[in-house]
Amino acid sequence: MSSSTAKTTTAANELPDTIRALVWRDDALHLLDQRQLPQSCDWLKLDDAPAVARAIHDMVVRGAPAIGIAAAYGVVLAARAAWLTANKDWREAIEPDLQILAGARPTAVNLHWALARMQALFTELDDDPEPALLAEANRIHAEDVAANRRMGELGADLIGSVPAVLTHCNTGSLATGGFGTALGVIRTLYGRGAVKQVYATETRPWLQGARLTAWELQQDAIPGQLIADSAAAALISHGDVKWVIVGADRVAANGDVANKIGTYQLAIAARYHGARFMVVAPTSSVDMACASGADIPIEDRNPEELLKVAGQAVAAGGFAAWNPVFDVTPASLIDALVTEAGVVEQPDQARLARLLQA
Amino acid sequence: MSSSTAKTTTAANELPDTIRALVWRDDALHLLDQRQLPQSCDWLKLDDAPAVARAIHDMVVRGAPAIGIAAAYGVVLAARAAWLTANKDWREAIEPDLQILAGARPTAVNLHWALARMQALFTELDDDPEPALLAEANRIHAEDVAANRRMGELGADLIGSVPAVLTHCNTGSLATGGFGTALGVIRTLYGRGAVKQVYATETRPWLQGARLTAWELQQDAIPGQLIADSAAAALISHGDVKWVIVGADRVAANGDVANKIGTYQLAIAARYHGARFMVVAPTSSVDMACASGADIPIEDRNPEELLKVAGQAVAAGGFAAWNPVFDVTPASLIDALVTEAGVVEQPDQARLARLLQA
Repeated sequence: MSSSTAKTTTAANELPDTIRALVWRDDALHLLDQRQLPQSCDWLKLDDAPAVARAIHDMVVRGAPAIGIAAAYGVVLAARAAWLTANKDWREAIEPDLQILAGARPTAVNLHWALARMQALFTELDDDPEPALLAEANRIHAEDVAANRRMGELGADLIGSVPAVLTHCNTGSLATGGFGTALGVIRTLYGRGAVKQVYATETRPWLQGARLTAWELQQDAIPGQLIADSAAAALISHGDVKWVIVGADRVAANGDVANKIGTYQLAIAARYHGARFMVVAPTSSVDMACASGADIPIEDRNPEELLKVAGQAVAAGGFAAWNPVFDVTPASLIDALVTEAGVVEQPDQARLARLLQA
Repeated sequence: MSSSTAKTTTAANELPDTIRALVWRDDALHLLDQRQLPQSCDWLKLDDAPAVARAIHDMVVRGAPAIGIAAAYGVVLAARAAWLTANKDWREAIEPDLQILAGARPTAVNLHWALARMQALFTELDDDPEPALLAEANRIHAEDVAANRRMGELGADLIGSVPAVLTHCNTGSLATGGFGTALGVIRTLYGRGAVKQVYATETRPWLQGARLTAWELQQDAIPGQLIADSAAAALISHGDVKWVIVGADRVAANGDVANKIGTYQLAIAARYHGARFMVVAPTSSVDMACASGADIPIEDRNPEELLKVAGQAVAAGGFAAWNPVFDVTPASLIDALVTEAGVVEQPDQARLARLLQA
């Protein structure tokens, strides 16, 4: 990371009681380096916007809502720098940093949503913009946690009581402002005694399920089991998994959902077996400007992420790989979209528009 | 490995021109240690049956046909030891070794098929049984290669010409006596100029696709790309993949197929998109004593295979994992079963019985 990033490490056996991806403290954004979890707990202190953009790009922080919140704090840091160098002309001076933040990752719309919400304040700010922007970033953060709690209740209400659920990737406290989207529903279910067993896919290539979701479940003492991504259909065929519950990086106007690669395959497997499929995402993940999933930009990452595993070469050197890290699940495979504004069953354009207008 | 196992290593840049999983030489079975591929090329020399059983269990050699051939050579080594210790009473003395070989891995029926074929000779052998048994093991080996060549032609005939195919796990020279089952069809297709692009799943947890199939494709200069197991449905949705081609560890009498975990999920994804699904397996993989897939024993391996990746811990310590290494694809999802005796489209009990009686 840049010279504006400082690192503090906590041993794995001294992990924090409360899992969180990010915190604003001492006038800087602190990010838990999720690339090192759960083996070590490194906090990076970032005090400029390019460092925040790099951290988002390099997946120090990931998860659509967490990326949005990190970007909001990135705007605070950008405004501070712009005010220092350009004073009253800070609105022009901040532009390059906003561009850098906007380009950090393409798929999660929360990044753009958070930047737009922060920018909407710019015109009202006459003096040093940092205090007002920090207050807004804090609000975005707090609202996300509240939305997750609400979605947890709504999703759990819909599910009732089931023997087991399956989730993909990590959608918990580490992917959000706290508590989680899909994992928030699972936390709520378990808190109600309404689920006995939680299955988590390991989620190649970044292994967010193995590294992050397993750790979050363990911290909450929720009975969980890890499976290979390819074992999902065999598992669902056994009948205990009544719901597959996932998050979203972007929801299109017609209800199509971009989410971690593999989500689409899980939705097909769920439908084939008559299990139900739930997407849990705050309205900040809904992009009504995208007509359908075909309009959502899908990020291709470095093939090396597949050719190497845990930093070690596994495939023959020079072999090619196709590494899209998201896919699109059509609305027709989604039984329920849970947002903080309400639940949409069998989502489509009309139902989604109605929800957002309510 | 045991004291009866010697190792020779070849540097990765001095890999053999002709890939093969096993060879009988200097009165011993030599196995290429597939756990180390493609980074290094270690040949293990085994000269007793328990060492062969251990090598099968530990996945030095894997792939249903290769396991069967290795077991046949294991019987040769067992007979040598039994003749040395018990002379004319070798048929009793060999029993413990046969038990050990039979128990090495549960799912691939080729192991039991090869043992039964070797044992069928026992009654005719009056003197030292080794020469006749070695000749039979060599025949099993040679017949497997010939079957693969024949299946390659039959499978390629059925497919015609396509832009791309997708395969799972490793079913090539490393999984068989040579050439391969599913990968044999792909080799034949490519040799005919009838396929432009071959996609290979990485195949967690053992990464046979990343480590072995990618290497075999590269050795043959076949244009290949690796994908995450979870990217298969997204890939198939793009339309180039017209056939998904896999091997089998056991085919039940009704046409259900046990194969590497993830096969079932691929079959569902193929059917959902209208891509076709081909299983390529010699008749030695067909088990008419198993009425359906429900009767096939599915091997659960150590959860550590999921909690660690490339020997390195990734998941939180003590987390649970479910690690079945095979699953069952129902015959209803299989468009074609290709054997050396012929092709069965829409396999079912009657069609399969007819094929084997022909």
